Amino acid sequence: MVQDLNLNVAFDPKSIAVIGASSDDNAERKSWVGRLQEFGYTGKIYPINLKATMVLGLKAYPSVTAVPDPIDYAIISIKSSLVPMALRDCIAKGIKVVHIFAAGFAETGMEEGKKLQQEVISIIKEGKIRIIGPNCMGIYNPKTGLTFNVRFSRESGEVGIVSQTGAGMMELIPHANARGIRFSKVISYGNALDLNASEFVEYLANDKETKYIFCYVEGVNDGFRFFNIVRDCNRTKPVIILKGGLTEGGSGAVSSHTASLAGSELVWKAFFNQTGAIQVDTLNEAVEQIVAVEKLGEIKGRRIGIVARGGGVGVVATDTCERAGLKVPALTKETRLELAKITPAEAGSSIRNPVEIGLGRFGVSEYYAKGLNLVADDPNIDVVMAVLNPHVYTQEGVGAKEIDQSAQVLIDTAKTLSKPLVAVITLGDSIDVIGMELHAQETMLKAGVPTFSTVEAAILAISKMAKYWEFRRSL
Amino acid sequence: MVQDLNLNVAFDPKSIAVIGASSDDNAERKSWVGRLQEFGYTGKIYPINLKATMVLGLKAYPSVTAVPDPIDYAIISIKSSLVPMALRDCIAKGIKVVHIFAAGFAETGMEEGKKLQQEVISIIKEGKIRIIGPNCMGIYNPKTGLTFNVRFSRESGEVGIVSQTGAGMMELIPHANARGIRFSKVISYGNALDLNASEFVEYLANDKETKYIFCYVEGVNDGFRFFNIVRDCNRTKPVIILKGGLTEGGSGAVSSHTASLAGSELVWKAFFNQTGAIQVDTLNEAVEQIVAVEKLGEIKGRRIGIVARGGGVGVVATDTCERAGLKVPALTKETRLELAKITPAEAGSSIRNPVEIGLGRFGVSEYYAKGLNLVADDPNIDVVMAVLNPHVYTQEGVGAKEIDQSAQVLIDTAKTLSKPLVAVITLGDSIDVIGMELHAQETMLKAGVPTFSTVEAAILAISKMAKYWEFRRSL
Repeated sequence: MVQDLNLNVAFDPKSIAVIGASSDDNAERKSWVGRLQEFGYTGKIYPINLKATMVLGLKAYPSVTAVPDPIDYAIISIKSSLVPMALRDCIAKGIKVVHIFAAGFAETGMEEGKKLQQEVISIIKEGKIRIIGPNCMGIYNPKTGLTFNVRFSRESGEVGIVSQTGAGMMELIPHANARGIRFSKVISYGNALDLNASEFVEYLANDKETKYIFCYVEGVNDGFRFFNIVRDCNRTKPVIILKGGLTEGGSGAVSSHTASLAGSELVWKAFFNQTGAIQVDTLNEAVEQIVAVEKLGEIKGRRIGIVARGGGVGVVATDTCERAGLKVPALTKETRLELAKITPAEAGSSIRNPVEIGLGRFGVSEYYAKGLNLVADDPNIDVVMAVLNPHVYTQEGVGAKEIDQSAQVLIDTAKTLSKPLVAVITLGDSIDVIGMELHAQETMLKAGVPTFSTVEAAILAISKMAKYWEFRRSL
Repeated sequence: MVQDLNLNVAFDPKSIAVIGASSDDNAERKSWVGRLQEFGYTGKIYPINLKATMVLGLKAYPSVTAVPDPIDYAIISIKSSLVPMALRDCIAKGIKVVHIFAAGFAETGMEEGKKLQQEVISIIKEGKIRIIGPNCMGIYNPKTGLTFNVRFSRESGEVGIVSQTGAGMMELIPHANARGIRFSKVISYGNALDLNASEFVEYLANDKETKYIFCYVEGVNDGFRFFNIVRDCNRTKPVIILKGGLTEGGSGAVSSHTASLAGSELVWKAFFNQTGAIQVDTLNEAVEQIVAVEKLGEIKGRRIGIVARGGGVGVVATDTCERAGLKVPALTKETRLELAKITPAEAGSSIRNPVEIGLGRFGVSEYYAKGLNLVADDPNIDVVMAVLNPHVYTQEGVGAKEIDQSAQVLIDTAKTLSKPLVAVITLGDSIDVIGMELHAQETMLKAGVPTFSTVEAAILAISKMAKYWEFRRSL
């Protein structure tokens, strides 16, 4: 397909023109040219600037048509009113894909902006050019050195993103990076004047480097096609979708963001039910769910075995599970008898579910690993959740070393368990302890253990994975 | 009332017997005597120990009856099977209130434990003694130096807690302390064999030092009385309640924790609707709601003005508000015209609601404070939420100093606003930046600005305050 060919060019261009290239490259506001240079893009960069002859050490040209060599891809970073002219130049030059960074189109809600957007649409009808945007951040592809933020990880991974918001990705990607997630290809596509969610998701569905997809959409202009692409993709690659503007008020906010048609809540409810896409409600939740799809994998059912503090904390965790559609069943008599052997009947200890393994509260005793194995082997259990609260024990001499040790116990134990393990390392109330706990989380995430900061986040993510796998097994 | 008198004794005892006092006081497991000493209790402590003659520098006695002076209060920290005998001694000695720390009663679900609990009930029927517990942590009263954890703040505050879980409070209190919350009086009361939630909430309702109450209950044995006490209290002091064991599975977990009768979900739904109590679902949410009741105060309606990043982030925030029952109305034309004067029409800026004040993204420009005032003055708005994401700008040279400055701008601006302000300072992805952001949050919370780490948490807390104040105005 011609269109897939074009997208390959966008993700792996041999040469890029930056139209509106600025020399003003400093810490406060990095220019597109400076960003490509710093992030390690190795292709040719052609700064386009009406006045300058050099930009950041590169020869600059007054327009793309003045460049003697062929150009694959262009980033347009000029005032919106100048975009039509620049775009005509790009067509004349034979550029295949253009990313329009500039805002000031239909999303403004003003007549002028809408007219400008229409003008761009008529211009591209004339040529073979394809547009990403306008009003967006474009592409992040660590493998080829493309990015819209130099803080993003330079390592490649298996998660692809298709997003109408760029600002949201400025936060989501570093947060996901800190949680051990690496990305294959990310597209921020804004107003979707030409290329839309359908094209991008289809591209990632066929992309060998991408195994999981997250999609932030405000509206789609080809609902039926998008429906089919997402449903097909979900057979092999989980698709997480955050639909912005699902509520009445939110749908008003959408029109002022990307001028998309938001669609009704009922339609989207049916969409999620029938495509199997994993629905998330916020960008924070999206990060948690990305961790779950990548690190947790298949779970066979909704019955969870909890190894945590008991008492009221266990009661609340059980309520949270039930509200999320998970079950916290009683363990078999056999399991309880085995647990009793390693768990002293002291205040707070419990051999029910949630289980509290008294002697292994820091997670470092041999009993702890043994207890996790017993719970996992119980025939009533599909998935095990282990909750550690290291900060509760820091006053009792637990420090960074012990916290790292318990992370290692969980990593080692996860490999021996007969059921998937989810870990929760809750965060303390002082920055020192939080630092130790985040470090332990990072180690565990890098080792492939799905790890969360709150029981609530873990349970929500697990319940959505259970639903996804029910859908996938039903196909 | 005799019973109130007894509780005064429990919160402010002139002398305490620790039955089962241990000399084994070290960092790993602090004893009750060591804890009282370290936390600054200035009354008399009488260690009771069959063998020792001295415990941590204090003269020890074989039983309370061997102590020559009067004793107000006792903490029983011995094996459950020995509790009846110790209790008979306490009655003989004329001790008014006893805290039974020991577990191993009805909560075990075993015949032996249930029998023991029945035995204790018959013993106390004979005397005038009142019991807190068993299976609980007892009292934290910073003013009189009573605590069950030496990490808790020694400063007094205005929030009182009545909780069936002690382990949960071990986490909740330090977290709330870190969020600028200080407590008046806290009771962990476990199995509620004698004194129950009703007595404790009534006591705090009449306590001048307590202005807000949080209550974790698994079950109450006098539903109608509890209903009336909570409803009356809500007329003047907000009561936040986390009902543990509200779901079917959770109610099973309750019986193995405090052996309470959990009650049906429908009954509790009616309870919350008719008493006006603020319902929370988790202990983390309880901390956020405590911050809201203390720092936010009354809000007149559900219409929120958001000053934040725009684009997709604003769309998602709007959806989150609508789902929580808040409205994100359009601002008046007048407000928008004024905002346009201080907000350049660059990518991402917006003069709608959510408003993005482009030039003041760090929160430090004069335009930022001006923008907040404009939004607050809009007649369509009841409450203003300002969201800052400092970590997004740290790569652009924003550091600890600027983050503290923006905290100060919010503190100063909050005082001038015509509507209540809620702040969100989201957390970054590296421990350095998180440290700076938590520090800014702390400063703001101490200055009385209700501050949260996520938009979701802020919105949920605001929506529950709106509901509470609707209830209170309807009386």
